[in-house]
Amino acid sequence: MKKKIVLAYSGGLDTSFCAVYLSKKLNYEVHAVTVNTGGFSQEEIDAIEKRAYELGVHSYTCVDAMEDYYTTCVKYLIFGNVLKNNTYPLSVSAERTIQAKTIADYALQIQAEAVAHGSTGAGNDQVRFDVIFNILCPNTTIITPIRDLQLSREAEIHFLQENGFEINFEKALYSINKGLWGTSVGGKETLTSHGYLPEQAFPSQLNTAVAPSTDVTLHFEKGEIVGINNKAFSNPVQAIQHLENIAAPYAIGRDMHVGDTIVGIKGRVGFEAAAAILILKGHHLLEKHTLSKFQLNLKSQLADWYGSWLHEGLFLDPAMRDIEAFFESTQDKVTGKVFITLLPYRYILKGIESENDLMNAKFGSYGEMNLGWSGEDVKGYSKIISNSLSIYHKVNAAQKEVNAN
Amino acid sequence: MKKKIVLAYSGGLDTSFCAVYLSKKLNYEVHAVTVNTGGFSQEEIDAIEKRAYELGVHSYTCVDAMEDYYTTCVKYLIFGNVLKNNTYPLSVSAERTIQAKTIADYALQIQAEAVAHGSTGAGNDQVRFDVIFNILCPNTTIITPIRDLQLSREAEIHFLQENGFEINFEKALYSINKGLWGTSVGGKETLTSHGYLPEQAFPSQLNTAVAPSTDVTLHFEKGEIVGINNKAFSNPVQAIQHLENIAAPYAIGRDMHVGDTIVGIKGRVGFEAAAAILILKGHHLLEKHTLSKFQLNLKSQLADWYGSWLHEGLFLDPAMRDIEAFFESTQDKVTGKVFITLLPYRYILKGIESENDLMNAKFGSYGEMNLGWSGEDVKGYSKIISNSLSIYHKVNAAQKEVNAN
Amino acid sequence: MKKKIVLAYSGGLDTSFCAVYLSKKLNYEVHAVTVNTGGFSQEEIDAIEKRAYELGVHSYTCVDAMEDYYTTCVKYLIFGNVLKNNTYPLSVSAERTIQAKTIADYALQIQAEAVAHGSTGAGNDQVRFDVIFNILCPNTTIITPIRDLQLSREAEIHFLQENGFEINFEKALYSINKGLWGTSVGGKETLTSHGYLPEQAFPSQLNTAVAPSTDVTLHFEKGEIVGINNKAFSNPVQAIQHLENIAAPYAIGRDMHVGDTIVGIKGRVGFEAAAAILILKGHHLLEKHTLSKFQLNLKSQLADWYGSWLHEGLFLDPAMRDIEAFFESTQDKVTGKVFITLLPYRYILKGIESENDLMNAKFGSYGEMNLGWSGEDVKGYSKIISNSLSIYHKVNAAQKEVNAN
Amino acid sequence: MKKKIVLAYSGGLDTSFCAVYLSKKLNYEVHAVTVNTGGFSQEEIDAIEKRAYELGVHSYTCVDAMEDYYTTCVKYLIFGNVLKNNTYPLSVSAERTIQAKTIADYALQIQAEAVAHGSTGAGNDQVRFDVIFNILCPNTTIITPIRDLQLSREAEIHFLQENGFEINFEKALYSINKGLWGTSVGGKETLTSHGYLPEQAFPSQLNTAVAPSTDVTLHFEKGEIVGINNKAFSNPVQAIQHLENIAAPYAIGRDMHVGDTIVGIKGRVGFEAAAAILILKGHHLLEKHTLSKFQLNLKSQLADWYGSWLHEGLFLDPAMRDIEAFFESTQDKVTGKVFITLLPYRYILKGIESENDLMNAKFGSYGEMNLGWSGEDVKGYSKIISNSLSIYHKVNAAQKEVNAN
Repeated sequence: MKKKIVLAYSGGLDTSFCAVYLSKKLNYEVHAVTVNTGGFSQEEIDAIEKRAYELGVHSYTCVDAMEDYYTTCVKYLIFGNVLKNNTYPLSVSAERTIQAKTIADYALQIQAEAVAHGSTGAGNDQVRFDVIFNILCPNTTIITPIRDLQLSREAEIHFLQENGFEINFEKALYSINKGLWGTSVGGKETLTSHGYLPEQAFPSQLNTAVAPSTDVTLHFEKGEIVGINNKAFSNPVQAIQHLENIAAPYAIGRDMHVGDTIVGIKGRVGFEAAAAILILKGHHLLEKHTLSKFQLNLKSQLADWYGSWLHEGLFLDPAMRDIEAFFESTQDKVTGKVFITLLPYRYILKGIESENDLMNAKFGSYGEMNLGWSGEDVKGYSKIISNSLSIYHKVNAAQKEVNAN
Repeated sequence: MKKKIVLAYSGGLDTSFCAVYLSKKLNYEVHAVTVNTGGFSQEEIDAIEKRAYELGVHSYTCVDAMEDYYTTCVKYLIFGNVLKNNTYPLSVSAERTIQAKTIADYALQIQAEAVAHGSTGAGNDQVRFDVIFNILCPNTTIITPIRDLQLSREAEIHFLQENGFEINFEKALYSINKGLWGTSVGGKETLTSHGYLPEQAFPSQLNTAVAPSTDVTLHFEKGEIVGINNKAFSNPVQAIQHLENIAAPYAIGRDMHVGDTIVGIKGRVGFEAAAAILILKGHHLLEKHTLSKFQLNLKSQLADWYGSWLHEGLFLDPAMRDIEAFFESTQDKVTGKVFITLLPYRYILKGIESENDLMNAKFGSYGEMNLGWSGEDVKGYSKIISNSLSIYHKVNAAQKEVNAN
Repeated sequence: MKKKIVLAYSGGLDTSFCAVYLSKKLNYEVHAVTVNTGGFSQEEIDAIEKRAYELGVHSYTCVDAMEDYYTTCVKYLIFGNVLKNNTYPLSVSAERTIQAKTIADYALQIQAEAVAHGSTGAGNDQVRFDVIFNILCPNTTIITPIRDLQLSREAEIHFLQENGFEINFEKALYSINKGLWGTSVGGKETLTSHGYLPEQAFPSQLNTAVAPSTDVTLHFEKGEIVGINNKAFSNPVQAIQHLENIAAPYAIGRDMHVGDTIVGIKGRVGFEAAAAILILKGHHLLEKHTLSKFQLNLKSQLADWYGSWLHEGLFLDPAMRDIEAFFESTQDKVTGKVFITLLPYRYILKGIESENDLMNAKFGSYGEMNLGWSGEDVKGYSKIISNSLSIYHKVNAAQKEVNAN
Repeated sequence: MKKKIVLAYSGGLDTSFCAVYLSKKLNYEVHAVTVNTGGFSQEEIDAIEKRAYELGVHSYTCVDAMEDYYTTCVKYLIFGNVLKNNTYPLSVSAERTIQAKTIADYALQIQAEAVAHGSTGAGNDQVRFDVIFNILCPNTTIITPIRDLQLSREAEIHFLQENGFEINFEKALYSINKGLWGTSVGGKETLTSHGYLPEQAFPSQLNTAVAPSTDVTLHFEKGEIVGINNKAFSNPVQAIQHLENIAAPYAIGRDMHVGDTIVGIKGRVGFEAAAAILILKGHHLLEKHTLSKFQLNLKSQLADWYGSWLHEGLFLDPAMRDIEAFFESTQDKVTGKVFITLLPYRYILKGIESENDLMNAKFGSYGEMNLGWSGEDVKGYSKIISNSLSIYHKVNAAQKEVNAN
């Protein structure tokens, strides 16, 4: 009897090669699994499934992981306003994590002897898959043909042909990774430090058919996005997708991210993530009105760690659950509306409305009116906060004088 | 003989009132001092001086503090990529700090008995002045007529008229504070949580006479801005001003900042800061290419504190000097060019070029090629970093099972 | 009808003065309230009550706040291993906070017009009372006779005598503040930077009648102290008190704390806190065995803030609730026994036993045996973590060479 | 011609095996180098050298690295009051780092083809050596016979005997690593979670011949230890050694450290480090008197990272240089004396004396007297710092009420 292997399968050249290689060369019973985190339409999945069976897999499964993805990860990225290096919504890092978890669960469920992923040896994904497999299914062998064999595209295609598969795998000019939380784009410019992706490399082109500007209202409840333009959604995943549809035609949320890869080199990637960027920025603005300054401070520092560890494959560290508990606690009052105007290539955060808004003329107006405190109070405050520094300066000035003599 | 008082004087209604009130009512010999941190042209200063003498001050001095401002403060805001609440370049906080320091020094120098500032009791500035005076000139009395008397504009104007000064102090629709590091704008919208400043409230209007887009190159040397478009500047202050002139016509660097005021209420302010935003973002991008990930992490966390303490009037805390030493040390390799495209209301950071660039195809290309390490190395890495978490999951899964029995 | 005032009352000279002053001079109906956080025995409370009525209070109440104190504060100090400046268990800060909260609640409940505390203007307690009253009962007037009148002890005694109260208030050589979480001691040595409290200043003297050494086992469950020496306690408060009784005869947990007072001066205080120190150190040791390294890192950083804000009267900041949620989440696996040996003036943390112990020979022995990973894995790990720094050194060495030419 | 290899050589069984194996089996010209960081006396070095030549090394060198060790590492551990997991002075981590750096420099200098270290695959040291070699001498091959061959002690001894070396390598009951900054001790108890090292396992036994207690004064200048008991030392290394001689007879500075090893398992080690602990604790006390609270806060957080990265082999990260610059800046006022009493197994930090002492009755006495501020000032301060929280509670209480209706 053949040994079972679960292959993380996307239908591209690398995982197609793996499917055939694992069954033909390594003699595994291949169970191909696609974990959909928002990157595939039903049509695409149908095509992927068809291809998989053509390549001889024993079974094919597509797991719709979108809700799980949102609940276990995207939600906390929003709570934390997480943008890696203040730029990138970590869409790929987050997806890969959930995909690896789902594959590991599947492998345990069907009692597979092995799991396989199609990562190369040059990127971050290999580590995310390896680490999560090492932790969640430690007795399952990890097979990584692409990393191990280091074949060129041509060699992979040749191998497929030799095995009777004449498939047209054209190399796209730009490699795209699409998901609920954004689409990353790699290409010849991202291999340099100064090249910028050309307009056509971005999947969502500016659509001149839409209005020159649109007002959008985001509705948050305890930090979660629950509505768009007065339309409620039973599921934040739908709200995110709805917003993406509204905002993508404005070509919003594009940028280039430069960061430290797990393997130690600097890496650069373009992305577009209209919904993610609007939600993150809108959410942050709402927090500025509803949270205390210490909450804002600490959130920001913890969010840096949360993003870094997610990026580096350490999602399963229990410290991540602790940060999530912190984030969850901070969101209790983050309820209200955020008003945004969309324009070609940009947006304006116009403001917010919230019952929990701490900015309220009832308690004073900045620079205009002090209610609830007096100028004398502030003098006292100034006196007390200067006290330690005043002593510091006196003590050390006195000493300087002594030393000078 | 009259006692000397040094008045922080800007020539507006409040400080004009103070000038007269201090000399006529409190019988001081008033020494009016304007500290120019980039807000006043020579013509404006001449007019301010003329007005001051008309109001009867004993002496008037304008201190050009721009270089001091840059060297002791703006430089470190750049090194730290400091944006308060990820938005605001802290221009007013920084200016007020330097102005207070300069006034204190002046008061000590002329051996004044007192210092005065025109702040109200409702804002942050009062604390910044108070604290710095308490520390640097602790034996000098602080007089704050506006805060103490809580007069309306009308009452102030009436007092001036009574004393023979018929000056036209029209209330501007928007109050503007201009300086080297940005211009803040307050108005009726900033008193609400959802109103956005109208186009005309921003001092720099979009200038349709300039080219629809312009490429700009910023030259950094050890973190300092030393050139624009291949033109070297002996002084970063000039580089900043030059860049402002290029970028302001594109109406870039505008936003609304919401934050915690020192007095405890939430405050909101609009601003435009084309040069500041471009320099901060360009500098940060250059750092992403030239610093280690731990440098980037720590810088970001320290910068949050640096910004918060500057904002809250605690610039003289010795911890600020320690953070500056940290920042200084990090800038050793932050040398190179940053390429930016300016467009109406927005800009694109296109990339960088640097001899210190750590992203270099010689050492591998992200996702494409691993040079200098192998797939086996990564497997080992993955194994070791999963080890602790794998143990964690085994130990606690085992225990869960025991508990279940 | 007289207006009601609630007086935080301890029965000492200052609050006795307040009781009389508030009723006789300010004509209030005085409701004296003692909040017992572990400092008073039943006999002491009875005496305090008797004295209160002698002094003419309208009502006297002693609120036993020990469980509330533990649940809302001490528990989190343990979870966080909080020692201010790595030394002091923050016993007074924590007590004052709970006392102020309890007094505020009482004042709201009896609809008092005012609250009073007996703090001087020189310490931290005034701020803790003020701040919590400002927040929880903002419409209740705060009266602070001792701070306002700045009377000497003699003047206070004289006033009491004038009003017919001949009470013997001897000034103790050392002022003592006792509570569940430790006893602080002030005296002439604590007013200097170099004097150390003499043996007799500490309330718990070394008891030579006990065994020269004793072994103690602490039992923790999800971070809470639930048993001592195999004896279970339904309530951690009792476990703490039981441990104090065992450990105090060994004169353990003494030290001097130097720190930044809220009013800006440096302050120094002696303390003894046998149970607190043993529990904190034992708990921390158990965590070192059961938590991940990132959990330990983050806990330590958040604990610093938690302690600082508690100390500074900011317990009601919602950020504190968020940190508590974080701490709570971390404690899930902090279950097990800690073995300690008590000796005169010191203790030895011998080790722990826990089903959640991550140190387990099954997974390898430090420096002895690698199970679950190979030397090759470590080489790969070393290669990958050096990669970025190796590139850094190559790039910058290369550049140095270029510059030298 | 044979290829040169530099062997990090200590003269123990493992590196003796390496010396023979590298020359006999791998045919290298072996250059044995001992880097003395305080662990070896001249007699021991002479013996090590003699043994090395007997084993057939081509050259033997002992590099006295003590000053370098102090200047590049120990100094900053003192500045940062670094104790890993609040317990361990990181003596081995620090030594290994300096030893690896010295070996790498030596290898470059003699243009060796390879470097070798005798680490096993089970500990931290292998990573420290690997990483530093990877960075500093990336073109030099790293050979690690013990890790690669995984031989037992018996097999190593057998190999040596086969090659004609009959050396008596008794396995000590406890493995000892001695250096300037402390001595670590491993043994059968450290392989468990609850066993404590017996008295005789510690190298420095309590010496009953010394006085039952001794007073020691530590003199610090800008954070560096420059004198002991009024005796000045031109070199802090000598001060540390002098203090060790005074304090070791009291069996001070012992403890067990439990921590996360680089390889992911929890590890436990005993240590004694009398001088290190006294200097660190004395230095910290002096800082509490001379630094601002924000300096103390930030130092503590950065010190955690400094210690962790040193421990994990990342000493060459440029972020470490930045932290050192921060530390250096903080030490400007850390000058003065610290008074300590030594007693058997413990010590008392009695206090300090410093011209930079910020605790000074001239500026007020904690809890006793407020000079330089008034009770009214504190009321104002309390009002202002409660303002934001008071608003928070009002806004959210109001909303709760609305929701309830």
